[in-house]
Amino acid sequence: MTSNIFETDLPKTAANHVALSPISFIERAASVYPDYTAVVHGDVRRTWAETFERVKRMANALAKRGIGPGRTVSAMLANTPEMFELHFAVPMTGGVLNTINTRLDADTVGYILNHGEADIFMVDPEFVEIAKGAVARSGRDLLVVDVPDAMYEGDNAPIGATTYDALLREGEAGEAYWKPDDEWAAISLNYTSGTTGDPKGVVYHHRGAYLNALSNAHDWGMQPHPVYLWTLPMFHCNGWCYCWTLAALAGTAVCLRAVREKPILDLMRREKVTHFCGAPIVLNTLATAPDALKKDLPVPIHAMTAAAPPPAAVIKRVEAMGITVTHTYGLTETYGPAVVCAWKAAWNDLSDDERAAKKARQGVRYTVLEDIMVADPDTMEPVPHDGATIGEIFFRGNNVMRGYLKNPAANAAAFRNGWFASGDLAVMHEDNYIEIKDRSKDIIISGGENISSIEIESVLYRNPRISEAAVVARPDERWGETPCAFIVLKPGEVMTQDEVIAYCRQNMAKFKAPKTVIFEDLPKTSTGKVQKYVLRQKARRMNES
Amino acid sequence: MTSNIFETDLPKTAANHVALSPISFIERAASVYPDYTAVVHGDVRRTWAETFERVKRMANALAKRGIGPGRTVSAMLANTPEMFELHFAVPMTGGVLNTINTRLDADTVGYILNHGEADIFMVDPEFVEIAKGAVARSGRDLLVVDVPDAMYEGDNAPIGATTYDALLREGEAGEAYWKPDDEWAAISLNYTSGTTGDPKGVVYHHRGAYLNALSNAHDWGMQPHPVYLWTLPMFHCNGWCYCWTLAALAGTAVCLRAVREKPILDLMRREKVTHFCGAPIVLNTLATAPDALKKDLPVPIHAMTAAAPPPAAVIKRVEAMGITVTHTYGLTETYGPAVVCAWKAAWNDLSDDERAAKKARQGVRYTVLEDIMVADPDTMEPVPHDGATIGEIFFRGNNVMRGYLKNPAANAAAFRNGWFASGDLAVMHEDNYIEIKDRSKDIIISGGENISSIEIESVLYRNPRISEAAVVARPDERWGETPCAFIVLKPGEVMTQDEVIAYCRQNMAKFKAPKTVIFEDLPKTSTGKVQKYVLRQKARRMNES
Repeated sequence: MTSNIFETDLPKTAANHVALSPISFIERAASVYPDYTAVVHGDVRRTWAETFERVKRMANALAKRGIGPGRTVSAMLANTPEMFELHFAVPMTGGVLNTINTRLDADTVGYILNHGEADIFMVDPEFVEIAKGAVARSGRDLLVVDVPDAMYEGDNAPIGATTYDALLREGEAGEAYWKPDDEWAAISLNYTSGTTGDPKGVVYHHRGAYLNALSNAHDWGMQPHPVYLWTLPMFHCNGWCYCWTLAALAGTAVCLRAVREKPILDLMRREKVTHFCGAPIVLNTLATAPDALKKDLPVPIHAMTAAAPPPAAVIKRVEAMGITVTHTYGLTETYGPAVVCAWKAAWNDLSDDERAAKKARQGVRYTVLEDIMVADPDTMEPVPHDGATIGEIFFRGNNVMRGYLKNPAANAAAFRNGWFASGDLAVMHEDNYIEIKDRSKDIIISGGENISSIEIESVLYRNPRISEAAVVARPDERWGETPCAFIVLKPGEVMTQDEVIAYCRQNMAKFKAPKTVIFEDLPKTSTGKVQKYVLRQKARRMNES
Repeated sequence: MTSNIFETDLPKTAANHVALSPISFIERAASVYPDYTAVVHGDVRRTWAETFERVKRMANALAKRGIGPGRTVSAMLANTPEMFELHFAVPMTGGVLNTINTRLDADTVGYILNHGEADIFMVDPEFVEIAKGAVARSGRDLLVVDVPDAMYEGDNAPIGATTYDALLREGEAGEAYWKPDDEWAAISLNYTSGTTGDPKGVVYHHRGAYLNALSNAHDWGMQPHPVYLWTLPMFHCNGWCYCWTLAALAGTAVCLRAVREKPILDLMRREKVTHFCGAPIVLNTLATAPDALKKDLPVPIHAMTAAAPPPAAVIKRVEAMGITVTHTYGLTETYGPAVVCAWKAAWNDLSDDERAAKKARQGVRYTVLEDIMVADPDTMEPVPHDGATIGEIFFRGNNVMRGYLKNPAANAAAFRNGWFASGDLAVMHEDNYIEIKDRSKDIIISGGENISSIEIESVLYRNPRISEAAVVARPDERWGETPCAFIVLKPGEVMTQDEVIAYCRQNMAKFKAPKTVIFEDLPKTSTGKVQKYVLRQKARRMNES
């Protein structure tokens, strides 16, 4: 073997090897497009130069407060400019941004603050009640920071020791800030409802954030300077990485507190929105809006949807409005979308139903996802590409998470033979597009939110009148899926459906409570295991009858 | 200091860390868009599935012939499908692709084959004469492979031991192929005319190729499935990385043997071309074509130009044809374009001249270039952003070469304080756009080709009748620049301009020969050094008078 001439004297240097990080995107946007609008929120309009100035000040302020590598800033915020800014400011300290689902209950948020070892907790006035409870339960000595918002219409009193603006005044924009030496450094922490009661903390790194942000633009065919409406919560997978994509494209982030038809459609007109994302329920909200609200939209507008296949009727209605729909699929563990139903021009000639059937498929790998496989989970043998044989979806690539924080057991289960096991069941079609046939058996996705059936079951089991409980997904035209509980009461006990639902709403985040309750014996295997697939079939048949 | 919880138990695994490589792009294109057209050349049309099949067979054949990590495949080819395929097949062996400028002379090509340690040499029939001489001079025991082309109109006899098609038959498409474990692995070797006589071998790696290919698409706003006409030689920086960009976008590579107006304009119509690249002379060729040839172009067509600022008159004429022009700048050392004159909508309202002046600026960093600086080369202190103070352009990022092959002295000179020194002189404008004021003092860029003034001078000095010689760039409307020689003859000797030019054409690649020869004493410093800036001013003034 001769020596390799290309491996001699050609080392990495600071000139030719730089750690990938989305911090680079905002630096470029502010340098090249300083006067372009970065953020819009109500009457607030800030350029990329102004936004970067604020981001640098906040990064410096957070660093002075002790945030750096290994430290966590948690945020329970609406889609505001501050939430957007934190996606850059926290990474620019070396710290980790932990955005928390604002629909969770105080117990769960408290668990997250504790498990993620939050040092600072940013709170929107709308969520102060939950936040207060969460801080108490967290057992952590936290700096709570109020983040007031002029667009908030309630009158909740502040709970923090300081405010976002006061913190901003502590920082200097001219000070040096942190950038990674190693692109594998953690950038964010996103908790996902796992199949057990405790949420799991998914760790993203700078490399994956950078690459998935680019792939978002590449695979959606986005051109520079999109005007992006925040119908998708930024707390979901860092707004599926679109916070960073917008910096890479020097686009405009049009903020939005609540997903309601009138503000959405008004903002689309006022800001000439080009792109937005969300679960199919967002599309449905637009499809069913009064015609008067839909006038003069700046079409075409591009929508990306995930969490459930968009129903044919919804696609038809929004496309009639001039909104094109791209269907994507992914998990918190894959930085959000990592699979896209890449559209082919030849399909445009199909009937509405055929087109919807094509579009309902989850599709093919994102450009930066290295590989996707549907395989037998025991043998890891790929299924034939026949559109019929069911297997589990496995991912492999740079937009797969580093892993679950402080959870070796979950990591051991998730990473198998060099693949990430999604838990979702699908077929592989002849044209190499995947189509999900059954979600991970213990997850229900309702309006874009993951709900653990096991978490609901454990609450139900705690009720003294309930003997047995099993929860499965029931298909729903509006929400995608809703939780459906099958219940066996203890002998002599009586409970109504409404009582079961009310009990659940008191003991978990309200959106997780079952929408359907059925009292009947549970089908079981010979070894006594509940046959959930039988219950899922029953839940599906309810909609057909 | 507490331990960093994010650095515990979250290692890189095969599931979440994959070496970046453009091999991933062709795998995806073939899997997702197997029936889309990948390559067009005359009557040949091949899909991405067919192209990938051929690429896999060639990779396997090359591997069987001993190509792998540390081995080099050189190619002296026109813009043919085979040249395109080699951009994937050679990397899929772990080997390094060395594409050679087809305009070079046999001595230089022989030097490159020797220095790059080529094992296989692919040759187009048009270049067999030069190739034969080069092989003889290389001193290497090479496998010469003829690559016939039905579009070649000459009758040169083959010179190789085998042919591309015969080699293809030696390979199996179903065999495993190489992919990098380390994205820092070399992928290609591109020789550049340096300021000394010997060309320098610029080594690219898989990481840089992947990232610059994505940045090409990102910064040009390319959407999926462009139809790309190969007016740019693929031997220039791997077609400025567009071979790989086309795979990332599942586009169509429309091949082209020679840059002539009629085939270009015919192909634009026939194939509905959307994009092409080239030096300003390519634009000029189109601008000056007869009107009859320009009819019914599938506008808008997007052109990217580099090597010299596009002249205002040319921009005006091609834009009138419906061709938009994007000006970029880079060097072989930066994977081709790494700086782009990012266009701003506000500039559309300027006058033609003002717009041309904006467009003549080299611009801002590519999204994947980390940083660019104009600085005093001695102190490395950035110049003020005043559009007036001249400094040297420095680059830093993942699309800066690994380095020059087997050339520690050149690497030491090029990499300074964590930056790559370009040798080009520029100003930084207030809006952070750079504008080149003087090319590297010893390089003349003519029709997109680099020419070393020192190489020409050393040939001139070898002429027994010449006493002193100095060569500088003279601005040229058509070629951008041409070499201009200032000569002092020995006492009593007589030579005409034409004799000097004829002598040069016999002793170097013809395109390098001076176009202007001036007999006069050379201005010198007190220490006897030729004052080239004075000569450059004279050369510039010739055009004004």
